[in-house]
Formats: sequence, C-alpha cells, structure tokens
Amino acid sequence: MELIASPQNPKIKNVVRLLEKASERKEQNLTVVEGEREIELALRAGYKLHTLFICKELHPAPLNFSPEHSWEISKVVFDKIAYRENRDGLVALIVPKKLRLQDLKLSSNPFIIVLEAVEKPGNLGAILRTADAAHIDAVIICDPQTDLYNPNVIRSGIGCLFSNQVVVCTSDEAINWLRQKNIRTYATALTATHFYHEVNLAQPSAVVMGTEATGLSNKWLQEADDQIKIPMRGQIDSLNVSTSTAILVFEAMRQRGFQ
Amino acid sequence: MELIASPQNPKIKNVVRLLEKASERKEQNLTVVEGEREIELALRAGYKLHTLFICKELHPAPLNFSPEHSWEISKVVFDKIAYRENRDGLVALIVPKKLRLQDLKLSSNPFIIVLEAVEKPGNLGAILRTADAAHIDAVIICDPQTDLYNPNVIRSGIGCLFSNQVVVCTSDEAINWLRQKNIRTYATALTATHFYHEVNLAQPSAVVMGTEATGLSNKWLQEADDQIKIPMRGQIDSLNVSTSTAILVFEAMRQRGFQ
Repeated sequence: MELIASPQNPKIKNVVRLLEKASERKEQNLTVVEGEREIELALRAGYKLHTLFICKELHPAPLNFSPEHSWEISKVVFDKIAYRENRDGLVALIVPKKLRLQDLKLSSNPFIIVLEAVEKPGNLGAILRTADAAHIDAVIICDPQTDLYNPNVIRSGIGCLFSNQVVVCTSDEAINWLRQKNIRTYATALTATHFYHEVNLAQPSAVVMGTEATGLSNKWLQEADDQIKIPMRGQIDSLNVSTSTAILVFEAMRQRGFQ
Repeated sequence: MELIASPQNPKIKNVVRLLEKASERKEQNLTVVEGEREIELALRAGYKLHTLFICKELHPAPLNFSPEHSWEISKVVFDKIAYRENRDGLVALIVPKKLRLQDLKLSSNPFIIVLEAVEKPGNLGAILRTADAAHIDAVIICDPQTDLYNPNVIRSGIGCLFSNQVVVCTSDEAINWLRQKNIRTYATALTATHFYHEVNLAQPSAVVMGTEATGLSNKWLQEADDQIKIPMRGQIDSLNVSTSTAILVFEAMRQRGFQ
C-alpha cells in the first residue's frame, strides 16, 4: 500500500474540501466517514466504499473489509483529516445513497420519525441514534436545512445515518405518501390538546417534529391527523428536539411492548 | 449609563477571560450569562446579578430588572462577548450558587437525576432542560469533568442551570444522602437485567447516568439499589446520554401521572 506522508498531497486536500463543503460532497457524490464502526455500518447497509485511508500507527489490526482503493497515511496526515474525539486511524470516502419514499421497506406496523427543516447536525445525529436503538422503520427529513452527509451528522450519529432508512423529500411528498400508506401522523405542537402518552402510538404512526426555534410549519399542523405535546411542567416551554423525539419514540415502543 | 465602545476595554477583556477559563470563573466567583430569558431565570432563582452589559441597538426595550452595575456597549463590543446564535443584546455577570445536598428542598415523592462524571457541556445543558420540563426535584452531579458554570452549559440549557436545584458533590456523598432519604437508586447499565419501563419509578427514585464512553463506575453499579437498561433493538449499543436520561425521566413522570 502506497504511503501518503504529506498533508499537501492532492488526495488529502480533497478530503479536507469534502469535510468542509456541502457543495463539494454533492458535486463529487462522496462523503467522509471516520471510524471502523461507522465504516462497517455503512458497508453492512450496502454503501459503496470509494477510498480508504489507514494510519497504521493508530490502526495496526487487519481490516474486516477490502476496499478497492486504499492508501496508508502518516499520523500527521491523519490528524489533518480526522474529526472525531476517539480516533482509530481510519477515514473513508463513501458514496451517499439517495433513498426515495417508494424505496422504503416497511414492517407490518410501521413507526416513522418525520423531521421538518432540522438545522443542527448534532441533533440530527442524536435522532438517528434513537431511531436505530428503537429500530423504527424510517426517518423522513423534509426540506432539510443541513446536508444529510455532513460529517458532523455521521459523527454525532455514530454511523446511524447508515443503519437507518433515511429519506429526504418535500413536506408535500411525505404527507401524500404517509396518507397513502395509512400511517397516522402526529404533529408535535405546544398548542396541541392531546398529551403524547394519551394517544395510541401502537398503530402505524409517524411523529412529526419541527425546528426548535419556530416549531412546525402551518402546512404540517394543518395536514397532520392529530397534534400532540409533551407536558411541560417547569419554567421553560421547550425541550431539545432530539430529546423530545426520543421521549415520543420510546413511548411508542413501550406501548408496542418493544415488539 | 456609560458607553463602552472598545473591545479593548478592560471590563470587556475580563468578560472574555471569564468566558474562556474555568479558573477565572472560579477565582472571580462569576460566570457569564447571555440572553434576557436566561438572566431572568437566574434572578427568579435568587442568583445575584453582578454586572449587566446592554447593547441598545439590539435591545431597545426597557428591562424587567434593575442591575446594580450596568454598562451600555456598542454592537462591536457586544459581538466580542456574545456567544449564542439568537442574540438579544444582553450579557450579564452572575454570582454562582453552591447548593449542597443538605440545602435541597424535596417534594413528598422526589425524583432525582444523578450524573456521574458528565463530560460535554451540551449534554449537561440538554439534561437540565429535561429536568426543568419534567419538574423533577434535583440534579446531582458527581465528580464532574466539566465546569457547571461553563457558558456552554448555560447556553445549551437555555438557563435551566438556574431553574433547577443542582448540587455538585462526590459519589460517596450522593450515595449516602440518597440512602438516608430513602430514595431508591437505579443505575443505568447495558448489563442490567431489568428494563426501565418494568420497574416502579413512581416511588421516590433517582436514575444514575454514566458517561457515554465508559458508563458508570463500579462504585455506582455496586452501590445502587437496582440496575436498569433501555432496550436497544438496533445495530448500536448506546444512546446519547441526554437522550437516555430524557427517556427514563419521562417514563417516571408517566408512571406518576405527571403529578
């Protein structure tokens, strides 16, 4: 395996561009994935591994996968392209998948998270971890303000971008598809009259989460089958969006007996 | 009110030091709080307002509180000391409170969050929002790795550091105090045999959360009355710590009928 020892190497400079710019990720149809677990989750989900960079000083063990293109990199080079706290010496370029609504494989009693215009990569990552842990059917992201393949989404989601079925579409597309599949939609809103633990989330359902700053759009508030809220008993009127999503998803799982 | 127009003003340089260094916050016994809501939460909780900086360009409205020392600052100066995304022109220096276990005022059926060695200010902030929303009795932080009055805790907790009763102490102190108060402790652990939704959280209880990287220490695992876990049905084996805390706390609230 050829060694890249200089951070000025064009291949390394390109990784930095891919890390920094959504436009580069889009144009090259590649994203940067760091860490063995994350790369394995992507491969298990059928993502294509384009290039692998290995720092053998940090990763002396043999790999469980055989990339088409791989390069050994020095520690200096690795530090230039690594972005996690716990570093294991592996950085990969992976080809994103563009799943559509019609591609989704659903269980007999689906549960879905719909996110409208989610802004922060860290929140999206935490929600993807919740979705994986609860083993729900899909995460639908409508009109996103953040690039799904932002490395911070992959990092904070510890690879759950790959272990979940994730679709990006417009709100109209999602509303029509959910209706067609007879999945009941619960829009979350401070003004809702029902509490989340008093509705039946054991039937085919989707919870629809808005942004922290402005909540859900009028479109979703009007088109959803029902509106729900989490009791707020303190001095503030909102929870972190990844927190409130987890509360709703795990209440649904509890109602379903975690089946 | 006197105007500070230069970012080089010694008072402004001191705010920057307080923002950046835990040692300065400790030595001066001051922390930096940005935003009207956050400042109001602190004042409502009886915190002492030491100094207020107001950028009138961003905050033309009259204030609901009358600080002892206040300075008008220019937009340039404000931008130097502001650290939030949504900026409303107010930055305050506030005197931290050091609540002890014996200071805690408990309800007749207390519920408490215990955090061992929490590392990330963002996670701590999100947990404080959950604690406020659920209106639990207290948050006990054992052997913290992060400064409680880190501005990022205040920011991500949108002021809930002030609206909650928060105590910092050692694990031994917390274990003894909880036992003395007959509060049942539930340590969270992947190796637990009970699921969180199958135990009785409606009695006086505390959930004890470890770090994401290493989980709880052996001390807590041995000393807690019971161990619980959240079913993990996907490909990963952990949730974000603020997410798992919220799932446990709101299950307890549900069992208690949100009373």
